Amino acid sequence: MKQFMDKDFLLSTPTARTLYHEYAEKMPIIDYHCHLSPKEIAENKPFKNATQLFLGGDHYKWRFMASLGVDDKFIRGDGDDFEKFRLYAKCISLAIGNPLYHWTHLELKRVFGIDTVLNESTAREIYDRCNALLATPDFLPRKLIERFDVRVVCTTDDPADTLVYHEKLAKDTSFPVKVLPTFRPDKAVKINLEGFREYISLLSDMSGVKIASAKDVLDALALRAEYFHDRGCRISDHALDTVPFEENCEALAQEAFEKAMRGEALSEKETDAYRTYIMIGLGEIYSKLGWAQQYHMNAQRNNNTLIFKKYGPDVGFDSISDAPISGKLCRLLDAQEVKGCLPKTILYTLNPAANYILGTAIGNYQTKGGIAGKIQFGSAWWFCDQKEGMYEHMKTLAALGALSAFVGMLTDSRSFVSYPRHEYFRRILCDLLGQWVENGEYPADMPTLKLIVENICYGNAASYFSF
Amino acid sequence: MKQFMDKDFLLSTPTARTLYHEYAEKMPIIDYHCHLSPKEIAENKPFKNATQLFLGGDHYKWRFMASLGVDDKFIRGDGDDFEKFRLYAKCISLAIGNPLYHWTHLELKRVFGIDTVLNESTAREIYDRCNALLATPDFLPRKLIERFDVRVVCTTDDPADTLVYHEKLAKDTSFPVKVLPTFRPDKAVKINLEGFREYISLLSDMSGVKIASAKDVLDALALRAEYFHDRGCRISDHALDTVPFEENCEALAQEAFEKAMRGEALSEKETDAYRTYIMIGLGEIYSKLGWAQQYHMNAQRNNNTLIFKKYGPDVGFDSISDAPISGKLCRLLDAQEVKGCLPKTILYTLNPAANYILGTAIGNYQTKGGIAGKIQFGSAWWFCDQKEGMYEHMKTLAALGALSAFVGMLTDSRSFVSYPRHEYFRRILCDLLGQWVENGEYPADMPTLKLIVENICYGNAASYFSF
Amino acid sequence: MKQFMDKDFLLSTPTARTLYHEYAEKMPIIDYHCHLSPKEIAENKPFKNATQLFLGGDHYKWRFMASLGVDDKFIRGDGDDFEKFRLYAKCISLAIGNPLYHWTHLELKRVFGIDTVLNESTAREIYDRCNALLATPDFLPRKLIERFDVRVVCTTDDPADTLVYHEKLAKDTSFPVKVLPTFRPDKAVKINLEGFREYISLLSDMSGVKIASAKDVLDALALRAEYFHDRGCRISDHALDTVPFEENCEALAQEAFEKAMRGEALSEKETDAYRTYIMIGLGEIYSKLGWAQQYHMNAQRNNNTLIFKKYGPDVGFDSISDAPISGKLCRLLDAQEVKGCLPKTILYTLNPAANYILGTAIGNYQTKGGIAGKIQFGSAWWFCDQKEGMYEHMKTLAALGALSAFVGMLTDSRSFVSYPRHEYFRRILCDLLGQWVENGEYPADMPTLKLIVENICYGNAASYFSF
Repeated sequence: MKQFMDKDFLLSTPTARTLYHEYAEKMPIIDYHCHLSPKEIAENKPFKNATQLFLGGDHYKWRFMASLGVDDKFIRGDGDDFEKFRLYAKCISLAIGNPLYHWTHLELKRVFGIDTVLNESTAREIYDRCNALLATPDFLPRKLIERFDVRVVCTTDDPADTLVYHEKLAKDTSFPVKVLPTFRPDKAVKINLEGFREYISLLSDMSGVKIASAKDVLDALALRAEYFHDRGCRISDHALDTVPFEENCEALAQEAFEKAMRGEALSEKETDAYRTYIMIGLGEIYSKLGWAQQYHMNAQRNNNTLIFKKYGPDVGFDSISDAPISGKLCRLLDAQEVKGCLPKTILYTLNPAANYILGTAIGNYQTKGGIAGKIQFGSAWWFCDQKEGMYEHMKTLAALGALSAFVGMLTDSRSFVSYPRHEYFRRILCDLLGQWVENGEYPADMPTLKLIVENICYGNAASYFSF
Repeated sequence: MKQFMDKDFLLSTPTARTLYHEYAEKMPIIDYHCHLSPKEIAENKPFKNATQLFLGGDHYKWRFMASLGVDDKFIRGDGDDFEKFRLYAKCISLAIGNPLYHWTHLELKRVFGIDTVLNESTAREIYDRCNALLATPDFLPRKLIERFDVRVVCTTDDPADTLVYHEKLAKDTSFPVKVLPTFRPDKAVKINLEGFREYISLLSDMSGVKIASAKDVLDALALRAEYFHDRGCRISDHALDTVPFEENCEALAQEAFEKAMRGEALSEKETDAYRTYIMIGLGEIYSKLGWAQQYHMNAQRNNNTLIFKKYGPDVGFDSISDAPISGKLCRLLDAQEVKGCLPKTILYTLNPAANYILGTAIGNYQTKGGIAGKIQFGSAWWFCDQKEGMYEHMKTLAALGALSAFVGMLTDSRSFVSYPRHEYFRRILCDLLGQWVENGEYPADMPTLKLIVENICYGNAASYFSF
Repeated sequence: MKQFMDKDFLLSTPTARTLYHEYAEKMPIIDYHCHLSPKEIAENKPFKNATQLFLGGDHYKWRFMASLGVDDKFIRGDGDDFEKFRLYAKCISLAIGNPLYHWTHLELKRVFGIDTVLNESTAREIYDRCNALLATPDFLPRKLIERFDVRVVCTTDDPADTLVYHEKLAKDTSFPVKVLPTFRPDKAVKINLEGFREYISLLSDMSGVKIASAKDVLDALALRAEYFHDRGCRISDHALDTVPFEENCEALAQEAFEKAMRGEALSEKETDAYRTYIMIGLGEIYSKLGWAQQYHMNAQRNNNTLIFKKYGPDVGFDSISDAPISGKLCRLLDAQEVKGCLPKTILYTLNPAANYILGTAIGNYQTKGGIAGKIQFGSAWWFCDQKEGMYEHMKTLAALGALSAFVGMLTDSRSFVSYPRHEYFRRILCDLLGQWVENGEYPADMPTLKLIVENICYGNAASYFSF
C-alpha cells in the first residue's frame, strides 16, 4: 500500500517518479486562465481566517457540502466561520474519490505545511494553526502566489473594465509576478441576456464609440482590445456554452441588434446570427493582435432559479450540457479560417463525451506552419478538472494529436491557494508518460521525455502566449 | 493468476478484500427497484425446472442467445426446456467479458451451491442438479428471496393496480420480507401511446374521479398515490425515455388531453406539454407524501416492429438512445423546485455518455439541508449494469459529488435469482474504494471506510426511503 | 520496465502472451475493408522511396505533422522527399501516446526488419536502408501484401467502376491473394452533393438503365451490384456520416430526385427522403445477393474550406461528428427488417461516445437463427483505431453482446504497409482476454480461448463474408 499522499502521490512507476521529481516539479508556473481578483492582489489584504481563505467564493466546496445536506446557512449564509470549517471538514472526510479531497490536503500541505488528515476531529487544531499562520506576512495574498514560483497570472476581465489594478500591479516593482488581463466580452456577445442594452451603453462610454449597429459593437471592442493589449493582455476568453453558427449572418445580426436595443425578444436564429457575426469579427481582432482566443463550451449555467434569484451566478448551480457542438463549432472556426483571421485558439469542453470531438476538431485548422499546436484542445475543465478527467483529456489529446505541443494546466480558480492544482496535473502527466514508457510503448529516452515534460509544464505556454 | 470467481472475485487488493469480507458481505439487502411479480411471491409456486427459473422472462439472456444465432424457437418459442438450457450453456461458454457470464455463475454458486463451470458438456449435469433442488421446499420463490437476507422488495406497479397481492403479503406473517409497491404511472403520462383513452377510463374507475381534464388526471393519480402510500409505497418510477419540457404548459396540456380523448393525433409539442404538466403535478404529489421519484432516461424501446407485434415489449429489442437530455431535464426539475415541490429524486441514464450530465445535474438541486444526497445519480442501469458500467458510474459520482451518500444497488430484475447482483456490485464498490486507499489517494481510515461501505450497501437506502 | 516494443509488446500477462504467440500470431489475414488501389496492386510498380511508401496518401501522418507546425510544403507540397522524411521522423519522436508511434515502428520492424527508433538523428540511416530494400523485388507492392499472409483484400469501389484491375488480378495466377471489389454507392446516395447529375448520367451509361426516377437509380444499382457480385464482391460500404430516416419516403424521394436533376436545391427533409428510399432499396439488393452492408457513421468531413478547394477530400481535415444517431439508425434498419430484406450489417461509428449506442442497437436485429453476429458492431474506426479505442470497442462489444462473434480487424488503409495494424489489434485482443482470465473473470479454458481468438482473428470473417 502506498502511503497517503506522500512525495510519490499518483506516481505509480519509477519512470513517473523520475519525470516528476527531476523535471516537472522544478518548473515555474504560468497560470494563463484564472478568476483571481486583481483588486485583491493589488490591495494584498490579509485573510481573516481559514474559512475565508479555503471556502470563500469556492463553489466546488459549497456544492459538495450541499450534496451532504449541510444547511445553506453554513455554506453561503451567515453561519459562524469555524462552524463552516468544521462542517467542511466533516464533509471532506467522506469525499473519497473526489478531487476536493486531494486539493484540500495539497493546500494544507503546500501552503501551511500541515500533514494532518482533515476531518471533524482535527478541524479545530487545523483551523487554529492556519489562522495563526494567516496572521503573518508570509501568508498575504501575494506571498501565496510567489510561494509557487508563478511567473504569470492571467485574470478574467470585462472589456469595459478600466484595468486600474492591473496598471497598479504593473508599476509595483516589489511584486515580481506579471498579472495580466484577459479579454472576456461575454456581455457584448450574449445579446439575449438581461442587461444587454445597459452593457452596450457602458461599452460605448468606455470606448468612445457611438454604438448604433452590430458593426459598431465590433469597433468598440476593437478599441478596448487595443487598450487591453497595451496593458499586457494576450488572451481572450468566451463562455460560449452553446456554439452559434448562422451562414451569411451579417444582415440578420444587424436586425437582431436593432431589435435587442429596442428591447424586443429575439428568436434563436437572430441571437445566433448576432453571436456568429460578433465571434467572427472578434477572431479578426484577436488575429491582428496575435492573441489566443479561448472557447469554453458545454456549460449549462444557473439551473436553479431560486438560487439564481438569491445569489446570482457562479455559486455552484451549474452543470454540463450535452448539446452537440461539432457541426457549428467547425463552421465557426472555418469561417474565420476562410477570412484569413483564425487566431490561435484553445477549445475547452465541459462534457467529456465531447473530448474526441475537440481532439479531432483542432486538427482541421492546424494549417499555420511554424506554430506547434496553433489550435489547442484545452486542459480538462471545471467538473473534468480531476484525476480521471485529466487522464482522459491527455490520453485523448495524445491519441488524436500532439500531446507534446499542449500548453498545459491553468487553475481557472477564484482561490489564492489553488496552485497545487498545477502539481496535481503534473503528477498525472508524469504518471501517464511513465506508464507508456514502463509498458514498452515509448522508449526510455530521457532527454526527449524531459523536453516533453518541461514543455507541457511551462515551455509551451511561454512560447505560445508571447506575454 | 487469480482463481476463477473464487471468494476474492473482483477484489484486487488487500484493502478491497477487507472491506468486502468484513463489512459489505454482511449487510442485508434493500431491493428498492425490481420487476418481480407480487403474485408469484404471494402464490409461492415451485419452479418447474432450471430453464423456467434461469431463462423465463430474462431478456438479457434471450438477447445474448440471439446474438449467437440461436433460433427463436429455443429462446422465446416452444422448444424443449432442456434443449433451451443446453443452448444457453453453449452460448454462455462464449460470453467472455459479458456480465451474464458472472451473473450465471454467481446464480449457480450462491443459489444452488454449484461451482462447476457451465458449458455445453456440463449442461445436463447442472440442469439435473438444479431441478432436483428446485423440487425441494428450500427453493420456493420466497425462500430464494430470504436466502439473500433481503429486507425490502419494491415491485413496479400501475396506479390502477388493486395491490391485492401486496395486501396479502403484508398480512402473511410467515414471510419476513417487506414487499412494497412502486407507483409507475407511465400509462397516464404517455399520452401518445395506443390505449391511452382506455387507460384513462380504467384510472377513472379505480380512483372514482370523473376524468375530463388533465387536471382530473392528476387528481385521480393523487388518490391512487394515497392508496399506494397506505400500502407501504414510498417510491415512484417513470420510464421517461425522452425528457419533456414545455414552458407554460398548462393550457396546451389541457388541449392535448382533449385531443387525445377525441382520438386525434398530437404534435410533439402537445405531447410534451401534457407530459410536462403531469410530471410537475406528480412531483407535487410525491413531495407531499415524502416519496422519492425515479426517472429512467435514454432507453429507446421496441426497435424491432416485427418482434413487437409478435411478442410485445420487454423481450430484448430495446437499446440506448443518444438524445440529449441536460437542458429539458434541468428545466423540469427546476420547475418543481420553483414550486417548492421537488421530491427526493433518483436520475438514471441508460447512456453512459450522459453519466457526467447526471453526475453534475444532481448538484443543481441539493438545496434541502438535512438530507444527504436528496437528488441521486442512480445506479448503473440495464445495459450499464455490468463491471465497467458500475466502475464508471461510481467513479463519476465520486468525482462530481458525494459517493458516500449513494443509495446503492437494486436488481431491476424479473428473476428470483438475481440477488447475487448485489454481491457483484458490492465487490466492485469495495474494489474501487480499495484501489484508492492502496494507491495513497485516501487514508487507510478503516472506521470511516466501514461507514461508507455499510451506508452504500444498506444504510443510505434505509434512511433515504423511510419504508 | 518492459523493453520498448519487444516481442511481448502490449501483452501484459502470461495468458495474453500465450494467446498471442500460440494462436493469434499464426492466423492469416482477411482485410475486408481497405482503400488500396487495385490498379497499383495490378501494376505492381516499385516504390520510389521510403517517403512515397510511408507518407504517400497517409492523411494520419500529414495531420500529425501539421499539428506540430510543419509547413505544408513538406506535407502535401513539393518539398524534397528526404526532407519530408526527416521532418516526419522529428515529429514522430514527439508522438508519445499516438498510434502513429506504434504503427511506424511496427512498419519498420515487420516490413524492413529495422529495430532502430526513428527520430531526427536516425532518419538518414533509416531512409537509406529502406530505399535500398525498396529497390529489390521483395518489396514490390504485391510482395508487401504476401509477406503478411493476407488471403483476401477488399478494395473500395464505385458502382460505375469497370473493375478492370480486379478482373486482371483474378486472372493472374501468380498472385495468390484474392483482391475483391466493395460496392460503395455514395455518389448515388448523396443527392445533395455537387456532381450528382453527372454521376447519374455516368451510372446510366455503365448500367444501361435510362434513369428518370429514384426507382431507376435502384434498378441501375441492382445491375451494377450483380456485375460486382460476378467479380467476387460480397460487401457494400456507405459513408453515411449522418443517418437519414424519413417515414413513407417514396413519393418525396421521387420529388427530390426530380428537383435534383433539374439542378434545384433540396431541403434536408427531401434529401433524407431520397437517401432513406435508396438505402432501404439497397438493403433489398444486398440481401438478395447475400452481401454484408457496412454503415460508417459520425464522420464530419471537409471542415476546412480552403484546404478542400486546394486539395479535395481525404487529406486530413475531417473530424468526428456528435450528431445523435440512435433514433434514425434503428428506424432505418427496422424498415429493412420489416420488408424482410435486412442484410448482414456492420455498423461503425467514429464517435466513441456512441459505442454503447451501436453495441446495443445491433441486438435489436439479431433475429436470424443460424448466423452468429448477423449484425456487427464494427471495429474501432479511423480516429478510434488506436490502443484505447480498440480496448473500449471490444470491452463495449463484450459487455453488451457477443465479442466471440466479432468479425475482427480491417486496415481501412491507403497504404501497402499497414498490415501490422492487424498485429496491433491482435495483441490488444489477446491482452484484453488475458486480463479477464488472469483476473479470475473467465476460466483458463485454453481450448475455448483458442477458438475465440482464432475466430476473431480470422474464422469469423471467413464464414461471415462467404467470399
